[in-house]
Amino acid sequence: MPNPTAAMLVIGDEILSGRTLDSNTNHLAGKLTEHGIDLREVRIVSDDASAIVSAVRALSNGFDHVFTSGGIGPTHDDITADCIAQAFGVSIDVRADARALLAAHYERQGSELNEARLRMARIPDGATLIDNPVSVAPGFVIQNVHVMAGVPSVFKAMVASVMPTLTGGAPLLSQSLRIDRGEGDIAGPLSKLADDYPQLSIGSYPFQKDGKYGSNIVIRGQDSAQVGAAIERLALEMGV
Amino acid sequence: MPNPTAAMLVIGDEILSGRTLDSNTNHLAGKLTEHGIDLREVRIVSDDASAIVSAVRALSNGFDHVFTSGGIGPTHDDITADCIAQAFGVSIDVRADARALLAAHYERQGSELNEARLRMARIPDGATLIDNPVSVAPGFVIQNVHVMAGVPSVFKAMVASVMPTLTGGAPLLSQSLRIDRGEGDIAGPLSKLADDYPQLSIGSYPFQKDGKYGSNIVIRGQDSAQVGAAIERLALEMGV
Repeated sequence: MPNPTAAMLVIGDEILSGRTLDSNTNHLAGKLTEHGIDLREVRIVSDDASAIVSAVRALSNGFDHVFTSGGIGPTHDDITADCIAQAFGVSIDVRADARALLAAHYERQGSELNEARLRMARIPDGATLIDNPVSVAPGFVIQNVHVMAGVPSVFKAMVASVMPTLTGGAPLLSQSLRIDRGEGDIAGPLSKLADDYPQLSIGSYPFQKDGKYGSNIVIRGQDSAQVGAAIERLALEMGV
Repeated sequence: MPNPTAAMLVIGDEILSGRTLDSNTNHLAGKLTEHGIDLREVRIVSDDASAIVSAVRALSNGFDHVFTSGGIGPTHDDITADCIAQAFGVSIDVRADARALLAAHYERQGSELNEARLRMARIPDGATLIDNPVSVAPGFVIQNVHVMAGVPSVFKAMVASVMPTLTGGAPLLSQSLRIDRGEGDIAGPLSKLADDYPQLSIGSYPFQKDGKYGSNIVIRGQDSAQVGAAIERLALEMGV
């Protein structure tokens, strides 16, 4: 059976302006790979309602799971929750359980649960909450879309909350081999190897070090014996 | 006049598996912002022909400029050039000028211009070449799509080759202010500021340091006096 598929939607002007390097995608990608879920597409869109709504609809229709990052804080530029509600045609309002979480948190902190903070308790109708052990304000899941925070420490905590709820497939195993020759020298044998192992994914990643060309070859697949056999054949052919 | 719009398409299984952190998007985003071109969307897709072709078509139709990264090397998993040709319904073959560049380069290196390396001279019909001062194998532009390499040093060199050919708009200026209070405490005044300056983009980026909450506020716009006035008002209101 093929593995479940996934897409990620990163929401935020700060990524598209170049101010912030997105690291959430890389984190999620690693966790999904370990879990046997194939991340097939990532989109990054700005804090723009129509862009968010249409991306959510397209990805929710196209993949088994969708994960979003960003735009669920208390400030005016945090519009993700409203856009998700709009994408699925459901209402959104402050919900008692989310409000109770925030009320207890801010009471412990000695801060006021003001109107801005209360925005973080607005949850689309029919969603379930995602636990946030870092800063309490919850994420949520609606249909196949997991809505999480953009701050990397909070995003990671929410991913950890979500991952055990997902049914994974066979984890993708990988082995890699460093070959100190340029890609152009090894492309022929590599292509034959790929033909002989159609179930494996064989990637070649060139690098340059101290003025010399080299290639990292990464072989991925679900059958560890097959991955091992392909790596061995390559090592033998390349004399490494 | 509104600034030209752009989208980026990152091609590569290694990003989606979590093996490699994409840094090309962040580099391009910064350069486009300086140049007054608005990066509106990024997509990352795997080394899969149908995914690449449909993303190229969608982004080429939706934005003024498209920039791609990855998949133009000599190995079997480098399928970007063929996919671009397919997306635009044009033929693709080894082209004399690209071949001459590679022949001279490999002769200098004392390497053979073998069949694999010759793949890098395959250029869709009607494209113009993008100079690659790092490793010679060229990128290319067809219609509004700029096709560049994935290796970060080569990608950067190609971006530098391309940037002067693009007509930019008014560069987006930004000023930022660090406020040592949580987002929930400043969201009200921030929202009023955003209402009073509809032409500015006001973003709030929370952080936590030594157990304390803070927010970086970034105000972006094309009119430096307006950006300055908004930052000053915020600093006054926040007492920083």
